[in-house]
Amino acid sequence: MAGLHPHTVLVTGANRGIGLGLVQKLLELPSPPQWVFAGCRDPNGQRARELQSLASKHPNLVIIALEVSDPTSIKAAAARVGEKLGGLGLNLLINNAAIAKPILIGAETLESMTEVYTTNTIGPLLLGQAFLPLLKKAAQGSPGSALSCSKAAIINISSNGGSITSPAGWELSHYLSYRCSKAALNMLTKCQSLVYGEHGVLCVALHPGWVQTDMGGEAGHMPRAQAASPLCPAAPLDGGRQRARDAEGALLPLREGHGHLPGLGREGRALVTLWDRILAAGPGAALTGPSLNKALPKSLLFLLLLPNVLMPTAAHLPGISHWGPHE
Amino acid sequence: MAGLHPHTVLVTGANRGIGLGLVQKLLELPSPPQWVFAGCRDPNGQRARELQSLASKHPNLVIIALEVSDPTSIKAAAARVGEKLGGLGLNLLINNAAIAKPILIGAETLESMTEVYTTNTIGPLLLGQAFLPLLKKAAQGSPGSALSCSKAAIINISSNGGSITSPAGWELSHYLSYRCSKAALNMLTKCQSLVYGEHGVLCVALHPGWVQTDMGGEAGHMPRAQAASPLCPAAPLDGGRQRARDAEGALLPLREGHGHLPGLGREGRALVTLWDRILAAGPGAALTGPSLNKALPKSLLFLLLLPNVLMPTAAHLPGISHWGPHE
Repeated sequence: MAGLHPHTVLVTGANRGIGLGLVQKLLELPSPPQWVFAGCRDPNGQRARELQSLASKHPNLVIIALEVSDPTSIKAAAARVGEKLGGLGLNLLINNAAIAKPILIGAETLESMTEVYTTNTIGPLLLGQAFLPLLKKAAQGSPGSALSCSKAAIINISSNGGSITSPAGWELSHYLSYRCSKAALNMLTKCQSLVYGEHGVLCVALHPGWVQTDMGGEAGHMPRAQAASPLCPAAPLDGGRQRARDAEGALLPLREGHGHLPGLGREGRALVTLWDRILAAGPGAALTGPSLNKALPKSLLFLLLLPNVLMPTAAHLPGISHWGPHE
Repeated sequence: MAGLHPHTVLVTGANRGIGLGLVQKLLELPSPPQWVFAGCRDPNGQRARELQSLASKHPNLVIIALEVSDPTSIKAAAARVGEKLGGLGLNLLINNAAIAKPILIGAETLESMTEVYTTNTIGPLLLGQAFLPLLKKAAQGSPGSALSCSKAAIINISSNGGSITSPAGWELSHYLSYRCSKAALNMLTKCQSLVYGEHGVLCVALHPGWVQTDMGGEAGHMPRAQAASPLCPAAPLDGGRQRARDAEGALLPLREGHGHLPGLGREGRALVTLWDRILAAGPGAALTGPSLNKALPKSLLFLLLLPNVLMPTAAHLPGISHWGPHE
């Protein structure tokens, strides 16, 4: 993750899945952040055990009580983080917490639509509002420099399931409330980028790939092993329940010495590497042309990298529809 | 409106603005529908006066109590419509009811986000669910024929304000909750098209243009007069408060004999004509290539016509970004 050097980071939904994986990767950086804030609903609960264990080894990890569907909890978390930071700003807010319900369109209700939208869309909005002063402070610490995650950024974890053109995973379940919430999250990100970009805050929505987590389930897969290789050559395959599958859902062979990494599929790690490549480059760079085709596994090409970075889609990237895994 | 022949139509939010205008146009058709159902919150209230006046002249107009944010009200409306239809199906459901709040991103709240999403996104979902049996019945009445509004269709009135690529009207206000709700509505429409299309129900999201209504306000405009001409050569300009403005917001000159048409800006009428052209043609037709460039005013090119019709955007329609008004 050379090139990604935030001093201070907050990850929401950090007790499992992609959130936990990102916290782990951040702590393992050669120059780890000064502070990693890990937001989760119940810092003392059973479901935060892995986070608690990490915190006991890493004094720079602070677990923060955060319920992203509750404005009061968000404000309290912002106050707590601000206090801990002293005069520092927050470089990177990763809005990762999300929920999904595999409900068919005919069975969706006002209640489930509202619940998913509140967590997946309104939460990131309110977090952006609450942490904007700290993000601005971080941006002011690097005046004149290009937008980047090392300066000040909001990363909204979106999904290609929220792509209107190609709603991924349709064959599995409608996930209507989830898809609508992610399409709306992409719009939110666009609006955040238009407003917060002027304050030096990069705002991006990322599709992390389909990761084998509580949400992604057993069926979660990653691009073919070959496709991921150029991204993270040293990335181990997941063992056991987290074992990786290829794009067709077939189990990938385990390689010797490759163990289990809870909550973080290989594509999640590809994502981290991806961020390194993309976000260190700042807006408007690095993501067009042949270099992209070389750098990214196919599933990541559905990325919703909204301006003020880019929005690479098949339409924007000539030839991308012909682009396949590296074999 | 030759070519658009639904026997039975329901328009939500029909007591004013675009909804009222559509009801008027439907009733004025040379072969008007057998039944036009006009949904509004309070059929007996002051705000439904124009609708009441229309109903007194048109026995085929039925005003239906409908609060689109209330599942119980939606179910009751579906039962009422079904009863009135006897054995008939419903050809066309127009989800027009919507709200918007000109709130800046920093001032948005959980409450306003939820309220707007409930009306603009969840409402159309629940209406689609509740009226699906009647829409299916209508589709079964024209077996084998192509999808069309004359057969069975859901039209979700969306907005280019919900375009993630080009969120229109940004310079006026953030309208964040509205934009997010419309982006989500577009996703809903896509999902509806994937499921309901198999039952013979056309599902489309349309951007009607910026119409001078209670929501659109005084600043509502239409494309330059010249651009609209080829669409509706006989369309009168609106007088008084509804007087039309060009794309730059300047008042357009009134032409002699052109009077006031309450609630329906010129672009709203262009929309009706647009529907005639597009929807009579069914899916996958009529909307690509040079004919489109000739047919549509510029603002309508941001249309979110989702598959199973088409999604014409600048990216999909070569040369469209250079396309200007007819002068």
